[in-house]
Amino acid sequence: MTVSQGEQGPGEALRELVVSSPDGRSRVLIGSGLLPQLGAQLGVDRYTGLFVLTDANVGRHYLDVVLEACRGRDVATHTVPAGEHSKTLAVYEEIQAALARLNFDRRGLVVNLGGGVVTDLGGFVAATYRRGVAFVNISTSLEGMVDASVGGKNGVNLGRYKNYLGTFTQPDAVIVDVATLRTLDERNLTAGWAEVVKYGLIADADLYRLVTAKAATDYARAELVDIVARCCEIKRDVVQEDPTESGLRKILNFGHTVGHAIEALSQRHDPLLHGEAVAIGMVAEGYMAFRQGLVTRDECDGLRSAVSRCGLPVRAPAWFGRGEDLTDLIARDKKNFGNQVRWSLIDGIGSCRYDEVVPAGVVQAALEHVTNAR
Amino acid sequence: MTVSQGEQGPGEALRELVVSSPDGRSRVLIGSGLLPQLGAQLGVDRYTGLFVLTDANVGRHYLDVVLEACRGRDVATHTVPAGEHSKTLAVYEEIQAALARLNFDRRGLVVNLGGGVVTDLGGFVAATYRRGVAFVNISTSLEGMVDASVGGKNGVNLGRYKNYLGTFTQPDAVIVDVATLRTLDERNLTAGWAEVVKYGLIADADLYRLVTAKAATDYARAELVDIVARCCEIKRDVVQEDPTESGLRKILNFGHTVGHAIEALSQRHDPLLHGEAVAIGMVAEGYMAFRQGLVTRDECDGLRSAVSRCGLPVRAPAWFGRGEDLTDLIARDKKNFGNQVRWSLIDGIGSCRYDEVVPAGVVQAALEHVTNAR
Repeated sequence: MTVSQGEQGPGEALRELVVSSPDGRSRVLIGSGLLPQLGAQLGVDRYTGLFVLTDANVGRHYLDVVLEACRGRDVATHTVPAGEHSKTLAVYEEIQAALARLNFDRRGLVVNLGGGVVTDLGGFVAATYRRGVAFVNISTSLEGMVDASVGGKNGVNLGRYKNYLGTFTQPDAVIVDVATLRTLDERNLTAGWAEVVKYGLIADADLYRLVTAKAATDYARAELVDIVARCCEIKRDVVQEDPTESGLRKILNFGHTVGHAIEALSQRHDPLLHGEAVAIGMVAEGYMAFRQGLVTRDECDGLRSAVSRCGLPVRAPAWFGRGEDLTDLIARDKKNFGNQVRWSLIDGIGSCRYDEVVPAGVVQAALEHVTNAR
Repeated sequence: MTVSQGEQGPGEALRELVVSSPDGRSRVLIGSGLLPQLGAQLGVDRYTGLFVLTDANVGRHYLDVVLEACRGRDVATHTVPAGEHSKTLAVYEEIQAALARLNFDRRGLVVNLGGGVVTDLGGFVAATYRRGVAFVNISTSLEGMVDASVGGKNGVNLGRYKNYLGTFTQPDAVIVDVATLRTLDERNLTAGWAEVVKYGLIADADLYRLVTAKAATDYARAELVDIVARCCEIKRDVVQEDPTESGLRKILNFGHTVGHAIEALSQRHDPLLHGEAVAIGMVAEGYMAFRQGLVTRDECDGLRSAVSRCGLPVRAPAWFGRGEDLTDLIARDKKNFGNQVRWSLIDGIGSCRYDEVVPAGVVQAALEHVTNAR
């Protein structure tokens, strides 16, 4: 892949967005080679102490860079095992206990360095430690850069119920350094691309065409800065209009109702990455949109081809069988209310609606479309 | 005590306050005999389902009343053991799992029926279940009525660190029915009175004189409605000015820095009630205020007499010894920053300042003033 070379060049722009919400403002900085300038960018001198949370994989590559960038400050670090299984209440409690033992005070700063698991977990920790301390997210995965780190959602899983415990709390800042993608393996980079494709599908047809033109791993670093910044802009605009997901924000869940269920079921066999499950979910929900008359047959087929062209799966693995268990998991989706499953469905390329009710037969057909029922 | 008779009389006023904060508005309804009218007062028809959390003691007295008042609605109930030991992450998780198993949705209402433990625990559950569902607090203890239920603080303990995990989240409504005090034993009623005295001390000299004129158990029901309403008004005014305790709100912690430490240490022997520890804490911190030149010797001595007249303790039990361990616990108080203990101290009767630094020798003298060092 082409994002592997060196530091930020002199001609490369540092992109900055500001996300406003009822509970505060959040800065999003996007560039290449940002990490060594971190101390100055964050203004770490304003805080009484720093606590860096990371996972074993990311820490190996970037913890030293972050510590060097915050040199001269009192910094504690805590490393959790990499992967979704760290997103539990038990790990949350372990981190809280570490903060308490340090007598970490309410004017300190929690720095979450990692992918979506670390920013979700560390955001929930910071939002609830002593009823809330400041935190920043340094996203090192593509999925984290465009999705998990922006918008204030955080949380942990409750057994098999994903993200059931958490809050909406804005980070003070989000740092996106696309140079960190060089240590992300191809499978994870491609999986993260599913969220990029989603932003195009729900809000920006031009972006959709741009990001489905070739394989996810074929984009240059400069292109990535622009693409990630555009995704963050879309998310910012949606989140500002609806910070607590009572309305418009639900469009960000396109592909995720089926996606979450597939991801959860896959844990029993050979776990799919979140983005892989979302890719399959977008194909399924795109098919629902077609059956509901919201997109054309061509748009529906094109979506499937585009997802495939990026290197993403468009169908659940063979061991999935008919996937009957999906229905129960879908019935528990957080967006539901009034005992009805509510869907976010595209109604064109670059446009999406939410709170849609879809007949059970259409849902079944869509699930068969992406599993091995036929 | 005189609050034991019957329903709300025709001449008795229902007092209503509105608490506004960045994250919403909260109604506080105060009266006598309110519980049977609950369904109408809360507008329970607006919610997709109800989940009532209570403890074994309170549930025995009032759960049926609440269920009857919400008749016709889909209501689930969950009962935890009474007492501070239910305010843990383990019990929090158990309640969250119960909600998840019910597939409780984001438009449901959590009803916390009980004292401060239930409203703190249930508030944290509701604030973080699926990133937040609506909740109301029905306070059945005096301390809960005047303190724990108003202002949006919630949380659980982390081992011996009190209230270390939680959020600031406003309930939709707080229901205060002073008729429920008839089932509160004398010790608990008197302990709750410590918070009432505190409101007078920090903000209203007239209230202070009114509520320290006789034993806590000697006030009539009509007087109680007025007194509780005045306390809630004071708290409302403070919380509206500073919802997240970055400044003024800290005055509500007068007596609590020493109080929390005494309460925590007492768990090893014969646990003190929160209000009893706060009463001793107010005597200690009042003495600090005197030593710092903020109140006169007469005001300091008068405070001790007034607390005693209410039936509250003014000194730690004999087994406390010199209480050296208090210093470590005080150093961990949530209000501290910059590695210095910060105190909220009265600077007159009915007035309070915050973020005060007090010399170690004065703190030591104050601790000796309320323990058995001499």
